[in-house]
Amino acid sequence: MNYRIEKDTMGEVKVPAEKYWGAQTERSRNNFKIGPSASMPKEIIEGFAYLKKAAAYANHDLGVLSKEKRDAIAAVCDEILAGKLDDQFPLVIWQTGSGTQSNMNVNEVIANRAQVLGGFNIGEGEQLVKANDDVNKSQSSNDTFPTGMHIACYKAVIEKTIPGVTQLRNTLKAKSEQYMSVVKIGRTHLMDATPLTLGQEFSGYVSQLDHGLKALKNTLEHLSEVALGGTAVGTGLNTPPGYDVKVAEYIAQFTGLPFVTAENKFEALAAHDAIVESHGALKMLAVSLNKIANDIRMMASGPRSGIGEILIPENEPGSSIMPGKVNPTQCEALTMVCAQVFGNDVTITVGGTQGHYELNVFKPVMASNFLQSAILIGDACVSFDEHCAQGIEPNYDRIKELVDNSLMLVTALNTKIGYYKAAEIAQTAHKNGTTLKDEAVRLGYVSSEDFDAWVKPEDMVGSLQ
Amino acid sequence: MNYRIEKDTMGEVKVPAEKYWGAQTERSRNNFKIGPSASMPKEIIEGFAYLKKAAAYANHDLGVLSKEKRDAIAAVCDEILAGKLDDQFPLVIWQTGSGTQSNMNVNEVIANRAQVLGGFNIGEGEQLVKANDDVNKSQSSNDTFPTGMHIACYKAVIEKTIPGVTQLRNTLKAKSEQYMSVVKIGRTHLMDATPLTLGQEFSGYVSQLDHGLKALKNTLEHLSEVALGGTAVGTGLNTPPGYDVKVAEYIAQFTGLPFVTAENKFEALAAHDAIVESHGALKMLAVSLNKIANDIRMMASGPRSGIGEILIPENEPGSSIMPGKVNPTQCEALTMVCAQVFGNDVTITVGGTQGHYELNVFKPVMASNFLQSAILIGDACVSFDEHCAQGIEPNYDRIKELVDNSLMLVTALNTKIGYYKAAEIAQTAHKNGTTLKDEAVRLGYVSSEDFDAWVKPEDMVGSLQ
Amino acid sequence: MNYRIEKDTMGEVKVPAEKYWGAQTERSRNNFKIGPSASMPKEIIEGFAYLKKAAAYANHDLGVLSKEKRDAIAAVCDEILAGKLDDQFPLVIWQTGSGTQSNMNVNEVIANRAQVLGGFNIGEGEQLVKANDDVNKSQSSNDTFPTGMHIACYKAVIEKTIPGVTQLRNTLKAKSEQYMSVVKIGRTHLMDATPLTLGQEFSGYVSQLDHGLKALKNTLEHLSEVALGGTAVGTGLNTPPGYDVKVAEYIAQFTGLPFVTAENKFEALAAHDAIVESHGALKMLAVSLNKIANDIRMMASGPRSGIGEILIPENEPGSSIMPGKVNPTQCEALTMVCAQVFGNDVTITVGGTQGHYELNVFKPVMASNFLQSAILIGDACVSFDEHCAQGIEPNYDRIKELVDNSLMLVTALNTKIGYYKAAEIAQTAHKNGTTLKDEAVRLGYVSSEDFDAWVKPEDMVGSLQ
Amino acid sequence: MNYRIEKDTMGEVKVPAEKYWGAQTERSRNNFKIGPSASMPKEIIEGFAYLKKAAAYANHDLGVLSKEKRDAIAAVCDEILAGKLDDQFPLVIWQTGSGTQSNMNVNEVIANRAQVLGGFNIGEGEQLVKANDDVNKSQSSNDTFPTGMHIACYKAVIEKTIPGVTQLRNTLKAKSEQYMSVVKIGRTHLMDATPLTLGQEFSGYVSQLDHGLKALKNTLEHLSEVALGGTAVGTGLNTPPGYDVKVAEYIAQFTGLPFVTAENKFEALAAHDAIVESHGALKMLAVSLNKIANDIRMMASGPRSGIGEILIPENEPGSSIMPGKVNPTQCEALTMVCAQVFGNDVTITVGGTQGHYELNVFKPVMASNFLQSAILIGDACVSFDEHCAQGIEPNYDRIKELVDNSLMLVTALNTKIGYYKAAEIAQTAHKNGTTLKDEAVRLGYVSSEDFDAWVKPEDMVGSLQ
Repeated sequence: MNYRIEKDTMGEVKVPAEKYWGAQTERSRNNFKIGPSASMPKEIIEGFAYLKKAAAYANHDLGVLSKEKRDAIAAVCDEILAGKLDDQFPLVIWQTGSGTQSNMNVNEVIANRAQVLGGFNIGEGEQLVKANDDVNKSQSSNDTFPTGMHIACYKAVIEKTIPGVTQLRNTLKAKSEQYMSVVKIGRTHLMDATPLTLGQEFSGYVSQLDHGLKALKNTLEHLSEVALGGTAVGTGLNTPPGYDVKVAEYIAQFTGLPFVTAENKFEALAAHDAIVESHGALKMLAVSLNKIANDIRMMASGPRSGIGEILIPENEPGSSIMPGKVNPTQCEALTMVCAQVFGNDVTITVGGTQGHYELNVFKPVMASNFLQSAILIGDACVSFDEHCAQGIEPNYDRIKELVDNSLMLVTALNTKIGYYKAAEIAQTAHKNGTTLKDEAVRLGYVSSEDFDAWVKPEDMVGSLQ
Repeated sequence: MNYRIEKDTMGEVKVPAEKYWGAQTERSRNNFKIGPSASMPKEIIEGFAYLKKAAAYANHDLGVLSKEKRDAIAAVCDEILAGKLDDQFPLVIWQTGSGTQSNMNVNEVIANRAQVLGGFNIGEGEQLVKANDDVNKSQSSNDTFPTGMHIACYKAVIEKTIPGVTQLRNTLKAKSEQYMSVVKIGRTHLMDATPLTLGQEFSGYVSQLDHGLKALKNTLEHLSEVALGGTAVGTGLNTPPGYDVKVAEYIAQFTGLPFVTAENKFEALAAHDAIVESHGALKMLAVSLNKIANDIRMMASGPRSGIGEILIPENEPGSSIMPGKVNPTQCEALTMVCAQVFGNDVTITVGGTQGHYELNVFKPVMASNFLQSAILIGDACVSFDEHCAQGIEPNYDRIKELVDNSLMLVTALNTKIGYYKAAEIAQTAHKNGTTLKDEAVRLGYVSSEDFDAWVKPEDMVGSLQ
Repeated sequence: MNYRIEKDTMGEVKVPAEKYWGAQTERSRNNFKIGPSASMPKEIIEGFAYLKKAAAYANHDLGVLSKEKRDAIAAVCDEILAGKLDDQFPLVIWQTGSGTQSNMNVNEVIANRAQVLGGFNIGEGEQLVKANDDVNKSQSSNDTFPTGMHIACYKAVIEKTIPGVTQLRNTLKAKSEQYMSVVKIGRTHLMDATPLTLGQEFSGYVSQLDHGLKALKNTLEHLSEVALGGTAVGTGLNTPPGYDVKVAEYIAQFTGLPFVTAENKFEALAAHDAIVESHGALKMLAVSLNKIANDIRMMASGPRSGIGEILIPENEPGSSIMPGKVNPTQCEALTMVCAQVFGNDVTITVGGTQGHYELNVFKPVMASNFLQSAILIGDACVSFDEHCAQGIEPNYDRIKELVDNSLMLVTALNTKIGYYKAAEIAQTAHKNGTTLKDEAVRLGYVSSEDFDAWVKPEDMVGSLQ
Repeated sequence: MNYRIEKDTMGEVKVPAEKYWGAQTERSRNNFKIGPSASMPKEIIEGFAYLKKAAAYANHDLGVLSKEKRDAIAAVCDEILAGKLDDQFPLVIWQTGSGTQSNMNVNEVIANRAQVLGGFNIGEGEQLVKANDDVNKSQSSNDTFPTGMHIACYKAVIEKTIPGVTQLRNTLKAKSEQYMSVVKIGRTHLMDATPLTLGQEFSGYVSQLDHGLKALKNTLEHLSEVALGGTAVGTGLNTPPGYDVKVAEYIAQFTGLPFVTAENKFEALAAHDAIVESHGALKMLAVSLNKIANDIRMMASGPRSGIGEILIPENEPGSSIMPGKVNPTQCEALTMVCAQVFGNDVTITVGGTQGHYELNVFKPVMASNFLQSAILIGDACVSFDEHCAQGIEPNYDRIKELVDNSLMLVTALNTKIGYYKAAEIAQTAHKNGTTLKDEAVRLGYVSSEDFDAWVKPEDMVGSLQ
């Protein structure tokens, strides 16, 4: 490989000749060989592209950066956002905990790429924009990385999580309405209970996801606060007056999302409670999704020796040894995602606790875990929706068989003949393997006519809406 | 001990003669000898007292319970709320996961105590109110326990967590204002950084707690939904029309808190996402508190060989072997509480995922962990506030010594002489163990006068408010 | 209440007259009103009683404590171990993170109780044994508390966890042998799979618990190391030569357990990885128990509309509204315990990470969570064993019905007619709702005689042992 | 892109023409678009390559596979292990929870690649080895995936974790010996305490890692058990006699690691407690590493306003705005890794609890989290060792200054003048800002000569070894 020599305040470094990054990126590559390369999420890099462009615009507006430099910086940022420079960001999550080196990676790439867009080779001629003095102007790693985090995380929630969950929610809502009159056995403690309808059951899932989406949206205001303008410790040293508000406005403009400057920059650098808060809501959604997926796979179990109340789509051969078997694989993928989210929540919690003084140095691990959760939940909901939920159908015969056999319909007699006699009927039928009606009549507690009039599953499910 | 014989649908049981509980409570005592007795939180029992009274009122209003029975039930509920029957609830958390047996414990105690209040001995004469038919009328364990949970948890948040956190927040706010002009060294990565003021540092803590309180309050609407009226599976079987709305109104009236009937009762029985959601906010507060407590103990470290920038109150002798030592014990208690909350969050998450079909059977463990967190956070904040935060004072001499010695003031020169020269000055002073000014002048980059004019810590901290 | 005046290095304190504790305990009571009083586990206090007695013996042997003082101290320790002084330890978990105040509580109680046993009133006459100079001789909070932790945790594992798990394991082993020939349908992905026997299924549970017990025992060597002799920072300052080895020998002698002095005292004070390690094994056991309890409740589900392959004991009426219903309540208690253990593991992990320099100050929260887990697992296994596992019986008719109906027996044909034809048979029977044999013959792939000879569930379960 | 048509039991699928995978892989690609593609760890694929080769050898030895087929399969497995087919495994973690589709991916690639190695195009001529009938012979997804997991995880522990931790441990051991006589202030509760040596402090770290390595090795026996031979539900259906033992022997031979057949195959499919157990030990190591990294960054803090007792290497410019600043970036990377491991432990725990009946379907998420932890810990220890630990040096002047100033040396007087007088000296010096000696003499408790003779830090650190 060909190399060129780059230098920084510590001296010279050999850098691959064709790469735009510079000395500090290369040092990080060499110093942090931990896990797969380039693990820093690309969403973070995109967040940086937005904020570097916004900073250039704000700096120009406030008279500290020329129009030429602003535009040169913005042009490279646009290339990053268009995905044209994806191979220029080789760093890993497991670097300095402030993400300084990814900030410098972006600064260096913008500076060198601008040089090339300006008609020079890398390092040739006077530097049109300088990584530190221009691209990073009015900034510090300490306020850029958390800003990039918030942009990336907010966008992932808006573009991935909420649409994915909403899509699944809408399908479940439609199923709930469609099957609102399908009376089935209820189950509590996994045991037979009084009946309800399949639509009612699904309405519970819809309500869970509605609450979850609301909870997630409740957290977004905190996440919309960006740290930029705080610079190194939150005081805003070396920034022009009005910069923090203005740069947030540009970020909002460029992303189309309602970002604002953080009211308190000290918090914004030293703590990432907004990440903790929003991920708490992601975790809550995962809790809901886990419940839903579990129910669906239990109800679909069988085909002969399980519950078998619903049918789910056959997407692939189920087993390499058992022909004809079809498994609830989408439920499995979704619940594995949930397990991942539960763990990520702990990682984020631990990272969130360990801010010291003016800086929290668990930024990359918090951001990457958040992004993984937000994206996986969104993707998994879409996958689950398209390949499972949309295709769910009641197994009407089985549903009817199970509800009609149930002993728990006896509850309908509680208000007619009292709790203890009703219990006796159910216990006798259970012992003898007979039906409720047989025993109710034989015991002389209810006439055959009354039994038929009183014990109607469809009358036991309350109002349907 | 003397015993009496009680019976239920399964037969006879010997119960301690002087206790109000009945057969089902006694069975549970015998069947679940797991951990210390009576571990079911008393807050849950109080929640039950509210809901049993509310149910009696709603049942009477709707014509299914006599005024006499209503008042008899309400009288015992009032006794429970007054703490007069605390020794009547011997059951443990680790029982049936629906909390059925604690529901029956309450039903049995109310029934038997009402009998005594009515002038009879337990079991003597016709039962004035019956445990199942009257006290539990229009109810099921499956909707009472989650209702009791929500009442208990909501109350704990309102009465313990929010006041405790707010009290600490207010002290920190006052400290922030009081010390807004005390310039000190900033620290990032635990390393010396540019200065800020002690008041600014504390303003970050205030902002964290403000965000945390807001996040917690955002979750309360979900927690205000009560399941009562859903009965066994959410359909409301065996309840009179209008009962669910009315019983929630009575709960709201009796507790003075804005409880409403859950819009979807299927969710309210089968999932406890509201508990997951609110505890997520408690966990977020714990994350913030952990950061604050850590900072304070690091800043108070010493007295001679640590940071020593602040003084905290001496509350107790610090060591049984090292005389004169005073430890940040309130910080330690608080961070231990935080560690507990982080674990409780996982317990609640795991419990929350495992609802099956129409019922989640991790109710007692979810509720008890939530209550522990809510109460511990509140108590620990009050303790930390009274015995630590209120007494925090700056160690002015030490603060001044540390900021004046710092090399990081060089940052003030960045905009005057450029990044690289500034770096050289700092690095030279670092190498030689000299001051910035010495080296700045010696290197010929800055005159002595300019240095004094340009490098003023108090000019580097931005606007103070 | 009557009070007496006690004093320590900080001055005077009013203490309840009838209590043996002194100034430092009372300060802690007043300074840490966090959660319920006296939450410090009694097992820790007992651990202290063992170590104080052992220290007195070692100090005497090494010539730094008189025989009279040794015996006076030992006499009170024996009273503590006999449970006679349970109301003398009012402190909470949420105190100083080194547990200093509980160490002082024990020192004070021993000193004052010794005075009374010596024929004086508290505070009357010259102090026979002094709390700091005698009871705490050759000790520091920093080495006593971790020693007390290890004694308490080790004992809980030996006396509660291992016997409880072993009892359950033995029952499951007996069931496994008893039902080794009961052929039933297997289930993978919750879906019907090839058959196995009920005994084979249970043998998996036994193997899980055997592995878990082995893993737990593997951790005990680390837990057997005691910190005593390290004093304040691990150097053993103020201890006589040979003290650390000797005091560990006395602890081993008094407890009957193989405690040894920690090879490295710096670790023993500053880190509690042994607690982390052993609790990791407790958590692993909880993972196993959760799986077992889930399987059993699913297999017992019904009675009419679930799986219903096994019967579990009816211990209590299952529902306050649904007569005749019996729930898997022991499974629920056990899985709630598991959820608690999972959370406790995170608390312990977080606490374990936060040792700083020479001391970890999360000792009380780590110890109390460990003890809760160890005791709950033991208790819950005994409860589950006695009230559920021992009473498990196969529902033979249902087991036979489900296995005979299954389509997955087709796998037996794989080696006879090839994978694709076997799959076709199963798919056709599935589509038509017919039996495998019907379709196998109709499709012409297998004769009726061959089918009967080839498809025998009992031939598909491998060797039985 | 060019496509060819592949088919399976469900019908036809279009597959990229140049890829070796077949219908089932392609279905999975389309059905599980969750997160980045090809996220299934390559270590798992390698595990499959070992086991497929071993199965081919065992099948041949037992007479059910021809030598030609065996060798054709083995040749492709060797190519996979050599990394020649890395682009043939496009599937994600978030697929079926049994990993069936990755098993089929491997089967299909081996079959089609063997066809090409045999001189044909894909799909041309009679299939030399068939994916299901030959490559998967005597196997099921249900026993292959857990076998692949164990191979991958065991190898990662042996090749990454243990060497990485050991390398760091050895450096810390050398530092401990080198600096065994460097007396420094001890700190407990972050507060000044009695002295110890830097070498003693580091010996605690070594002891932590020694215990951690031992704990990890204790878990390997369980992890060495492989499920292969259990086939679909653990009974070993469709395997030749002796196959399970033989295939494990071949795996041991090919990997050079002591794999054995699992004694109980039912456990081996339905539970992954071995993964839970070993990851528990990885988590314990992370707890230790977190403590060590925290200590080192606190001791290195400064350069002027922190603790500053040690110097760590300067690897990169520390800040984009603060020149001359060098940060403990390796500590940050390492503690971020620890936070990830703590979260992964919860994911693995949750996955481990959710086995149902004969199968746990959280295999891919458990394996991928385990592998991430094992590799990150190993890599991060090497990085931390090479770029931080090896370069640690004492800042002798600062260490001496801090210990000489300390008030805690007063402890040396405890045994000379008693606890209370010693305390008075320390408190007076603390109040007056004077030295211990000044006050000891002034108070008349100790002569100047005695003070010098009695209070020697180097005499307070115990024996050094």
